[in-house]
Amino acid sequence: MSLDRQKLRWNGWGWVDAPDFLGDKAEAVWAWIARTMGVEALPSTPAKALSEISLPPSRLNTECVARLREVVAADRVMTDPYERAYHARGRSYHDLLYLREGHLETAPDAVVYPLSEDEVLRIVEFAVRENIALTAFGGGSSVVGGVTPLLLEGQKGVITVDMTRMDQILEIDETALVARVQTGVYGPQLEESLQARGFTLGHYPQSFEFSTLGGWIAPRSAGHQSNKYGKAEHWLVSARMATPRGLWETEGFPGSAAGPQGRDIIAGSEGVLGIITEAVVKIHRVPEVKDYRAYLFSSFGDGVNATREMMQSGVATAMIRLSDLSETFFYSALDSGGAGADSPAVFCVMLVGVEGERSEVDHTLERSRAVIKRHGGIHMGEGPGVAWYEKRFLTPYLRDPMMDRGLGVDTLETATRWSNIVPLHDRVTKAIADALAENAPAAGASGIVMAHISHCYRDGASLYFTFAFPRALDQEVGQWLAVKKAATDIISAHGGTISHHHGVGTDHVPWMVQEKGPIGMDVLRAVKTRVDPAGIMNPGKLL
Amino acid sequence: MSLDRQKLRWNGWGWVDAPDFLGDKAEAVWAWIARTMGVEALPSTPAKALSEISLPPSRLNTECVARLREVVAADRVMTDPYERAYHARGRSYHDLLYLREGHLETAPDAVVYPLSEDEVLRIVEFAVRENIALTAFGGGSSVVGGVTPLLLEGQKGVITVDMTRMDQILEIDETALVARVQTGVYGPQLEESLQARGFTLGHYPQSFEFSTLGGWIAPRSAGHQSNKYGKAEHWLVSARMATPRGLWETEGFPGSAAGPQGRDIIAGSEGVLGIITEAVVKIHRVPEVKDYRAYLFSSFGDGVNATREMMQSGVATAMIRLSDLSETFFYSALDSGGAGADSPAVFCVMLVGVEGERSEVDHTLERSRAVIKRHGGIHMGEGPGVAWYEKRFLTPYLRDPMMDRGLGVDTLETATRWSNIVPLHDRVTKAIADALAENAPAAGASGIVMAHISHCYRDGASLYFTFAFPRALDQEVGQWLAVKKAATDIISAHGGTISHHHGVGTDHVPWMVQEKGPIGMDVLRAVKTRVDPAGIMNPGKLL
Repeated sequence: MSLDRQKLRWNGWGWVDAPDFLGDKAEAVWAWIARTMGVEALPSTPAKALSEISLPPSRLNTECVARLREVVAADRVMTDPYERAYHARGRSYHDLLYLREGHLETAPDAVVYPLSEDEVLRIVEFAVRENIALTAFGGGSSVVGGVTPLLLEGQKGVITVDMTRMDQILEIDETALVARVQTGVYGPQLEESLQARGFTLGHYPQSFEFSTLGGWIAPRSAGHQSNKYGKAEHWLVSARMATPRGLWETEGFPGSAAGPQGRDIIAGSEGVLGIITEAVVKIHRVPEVKDYRAYLFSSFGDGVNATREMMQSGVATAMIRLSDLSETFFYSALDSGGAGADSPAVFCVMLVGVEGERSEVDHTLERSRAVIKRHGGIHMGEGPGVAWYEKRFLTPYLRDPMMDRGLGVDTLETATRWSNIVPLHDRVTKAIADALAENAPAAGASGIVMAHISHCYRDGASLYFTFAFPRALDQEVGQWLAVKKAATDIISAHGGTISHHHGVGTDHVPWMVQEKGPIGMDVLRAVKTRVDPAGIMNPGKLL
Repeated sequence: MSLDRQKLRWNGWGWVDAPDFLGDKAEAVWAWIARTMGVEALPSTPAKALSEISLPPSRLNTECVARLREVVAADRVMTDPYERAYHARGRSYHDLLYLREGHLETAPDAVVYPLSEDEVLRIVEFAVRENIALTAFGGGSSVVGGVTPLLLEGQKGVITVDMTRMDQILEIDETALVARVQTGVYGPQLEESLQARGFTLGHYPQSFEFSTLGGWIAPRSAGHQSNKYGKAEHWLVSARMATPRGLWETEGFPGSAAGPQGRDIIAGSEGVLGIITEAVVKIHRVPEVKDYRAYLFSSFGDGVNATREMMQSGVATAMIRLSDLSETFFYSALDSGGAGADSPAVFCVMLVGVEGERSEVDHTLERSRAVIKRHGGIHMGEGPGVAWYEKRFLTPYLRDPMMDRGLGVDTLETATRWSNIVPLHDRVTKAIADALAENAPAAGASGIVMAHISHCYRDGASLYFTFAFPRALDQEVGQWLAVKKAATDIISAHGGTISHHHGVGTDHVPWMVQEKGPIGMDVLRAVKTRVDPAGIMNPGKLL
């Protein structure tokens, strides 16, 4: 059940007819935001309608498209403006700057919707034969440029392969708790089908409603409850990938010493080796209980220490989400429509989610509360936890109305060791704030920077930064680039990975050598060259 | 603190002066084994002394060795017979056939003991320059041919790089619970140093006393308590490797979406890309309690179901070790000197190990006992668990006296999904038993085949087979090859990996294409060619 593209925003987040995120509080919130950012009023900056925009002509001539229609049935080869616009970019802040202005230079020359692995293989063969680049596309929610259809010099054009019609669960092994699934399935459909049989993958990224299984594997995505269910590279058992060299089916053993495992190369390959057609994934029985509750800490450091102790002593949470002072303050102010937002930020909220059998959940709650109490955390009950859980997929809807009002909002994330969490948090916060100030549209204007920990391990955790700011309307892309560069330079120089779960795409490529070293990069390039010698698979990403 | 090679058996297991494994019961056990195997008496088949054996001349001329002595201090370049014999092979059954007969054709032309990463890098440069193959060597306990010094046609010779003098803990991050360690450190020294500071790696493979950190990482080793501490590929955070292209230092983040991770390629690389010099590894606080106890099941299938349920419902064991009927019977008979060994095998023993804080251990014990009881398991108390724990590194000492008496004994292992555990167990058991009967030295003679599960996951587990048999003294290697091939063909054709934790080495190479597929193999070859274009790093292994 592919989602109806026409009902989705081609240049923003989610459903066209989604209700206004802020509702009654909107005017109060906008006033508060303007005040906080030191700007007098928020300008009106609406997006262009598609009807006002002219797309670049398709680079594929009629004969070529006709040949493509012999490979994939004619009604699944799309060249109309809506399909091309929809697939022109992912959904990062940076993408939206282009989409909203009608800069659709990256629109694919055609979009195809294969129905089977065999068709995907034939599309890849076609592209090799015709020297056309291919970009795999699932939900298209990449925020790092991972689905932008690019092509190399000399290539005839670029086709986007939209996988969302390959959405079937092919097999469930109820004994081993693994399922074999086509990769084009959207999150909600996957969970609905699994849960109807009593199972769950448990992978709920922020983009859950509008992203696909393949889109989770390709950039090593993480769901909110990754503490329990793992990141994509942890729950991926094996994969099948259509490559220019043919079908690559990896091993899929619970453990193996037969050399490096294919799944570890396919997870994170971001479409540059081939198109993932099927995956075997680890599933769980639907948990009896889901318990989400909140705690308050008077400092981020105390919350970090409590989180670390829970992870290192095996307290079996599904999620620990620790907001810093600034983020706690921001969401509280948002909730109150800016009321009380003049008092200082004095608390950090921690959400703890536990999922499983009743008795185990109780045991974990008891253990977690003991650790949290020892570090000065105050129990706030289930109310805020349940509220977060219910609204957890709504936050991205705030971005479009912000973009309409001259505001920018972006996120970036990293992961580092526990010993480096607070120092890196502070450095990156400062780097973003400084860069926002330096690149502000007017003197005195400033941005809001906030962060949370959301994916935890024994040795460290992720740090997720959100920053909102008044756009420099005359140089929006330059402003974004400056901030992105400032933050990523600091992350890369101070022990953080350039991405914990967004991936590399186009946006993080400049920092890859520093992260992986020359030999590490060369190893990836060697694999790429061997599997895709002509370089047709998602050029410009990852490497 | 490298172990004194002179005190170790160059052609057998462990310490030269280790006490006789069977003690008083020896004669009774040998008589029972002969009876069980249907042979009249066990012949005397002693190993040759090194003094009776002439080694092949070194292929490196005096000038070349002199140049090598400029790279590594002269007293750390060894060419004497003992060093060359010690490093001629690993310690598989198959290796011992050669070593005990004095077939030392694979002895390295020199053995070097570097003291620093810089020296390792210079040795690799030297080898590239001189066109000499290099084999990295830790404890040398490989049972798949992983440390046999081989060379390609045209290469001048082969040097073994013994890493055991690079044995220092360089850094412990007590906050992140990770340690940076040189890879030549033996198990006991590593644990002693860590435990002196309150930490443990928790990696205790059967070879623990005579194997090294690097030797654990290279073939993705598993310790007995891998359910808690993980296999090498799970506790490896990052690595540094001396390659022909220079030093490769991988990323080391707790989680990263920046493409495939170097550590996943280095774990399992078996020396064919370079020599691992340092590793950052996840450590734990020394557990307050270690609880090992035994349960009995009347069928292997019941025990499998109990094990699976514990793994899938998150019962936090350190180890579940489930012997089949045959293995339970064998060790019971061994223990009693063969008394009562005429009664049929009717029980499967399960050892459950739990390690951690007192309260958590109690919680896990309660949960595990509930699951075990539901599946018909009977609690036998701590006695057998403690006995196993205390003697767990002694079993390998049984092999040398068996070899002295015309007996062979080998092990092989795999892993598969839970739904395939019992069928694969039965198939492989039959394949080995049939092959042993077909290749028996005399009509009516037969072998003993037994197995256990010892490393468990949510989706499956390992199966470890041991088989003992009367050797066909006129065609020992042929007999072994026939049995190995029969078992591995069945594993490979029926959903098992060719190795769960022994690695590939030379012995499993023939099955690699079937396991990984042509593209999977090609990807590994591409990496190898890029990092080691001349092919000097441990040729003949893995690929």
